[in-house]
Amino acid sequence: MDTATPIFAPELYIPNGVRDVDFYINGLGAVELRRFSNDDGTIHVSELSINGAIFHLHEETRNPALFSPKRHQGSTVTIGLFVDDVDAYMTRAVAAGAKVTSPAQDYDYGYRQGDVVDPFGHVWMFESRI
Amino acid sequence: MDTATPIFAPELYIPNGVRDVDFYINGLGAVELRRFSNDDGTIHVSELSINGAIFHLHEETRNPALFSPKRHQGSTVTIGLFVDDVDAYMTRAVAAGAKVTSPAQDYDYGYRQGDVVDPFGHVWMFESRI
Repeated sequence: MDTATPIFAPELYIPNGVRDVDFYINGLGAVELRRFSNDDGTIHVSELSINGAIFHLHEETRNPALFSPKRHQGSTVTIGLFVDDVDAYMTRAVAAGAKVTSPAQDYDYGYRQGDVVDPFGHVWMFESRI
Repeated sequence: MDTATPIFAPELYIPNGVRDVDFYINGLGAVELRRFSNDDGTIHVSELSINGAIFHLHEETRNPALFSPKRHQGSTVTIGLFVDDVDAYMTRAVAAGAKVTSPAQDYDYGYRQGDVVDPFGHVWMFESRI
């Protein structure tokens, strides 16, 4: 059905009223490709790229079935991201305000992985094959 | 920091006690690469591939901050997936038990997108550039 491998591009829900998503730029090395703002200047949708890997931020709307992690103190999805250097991603994310929830370590199933939670409550799992 | 584009690989939380993840095989054309089961045969972690795009299912644990969508009737992340043929992905997912939450359509920001919710409550957004 596909001629090439499909590409995951998660869309992370953030609260209403957010103006500052610099964590994603400073903490992940992302570039903001485009932003759709509300009339009051808050962010409706932001499209970002980490060295070509696309993801989106989307504000909460009146749809109660899509909410930011702060709403219920947790997440339904961990944002896995295969990278060259797990430790470098951890260090940069923490320097920008993320908190480590699982330190980088090698697992016997063949991955090196480390988890952080970002300032909006989304959990990122940096991983590489050993 | 990366020599190649990082690759998103979301990890979706599912309830305890799940034995049957055939939706992901039938509804998304995924192949299960490996599975880590609990002693009672339920699924702890499943690693799947959609034509090379890796994702994981992970059962809920005692960590209250990672929960399946049924816990709070919604999700913190929409699983975006860039594919060749949005409509074909929609049709296959629905045939396997997903429900359409946003029909496939072209948007003026340059994407064709359609959303479905899967039997575990995770929201998938199939998308392609127009």
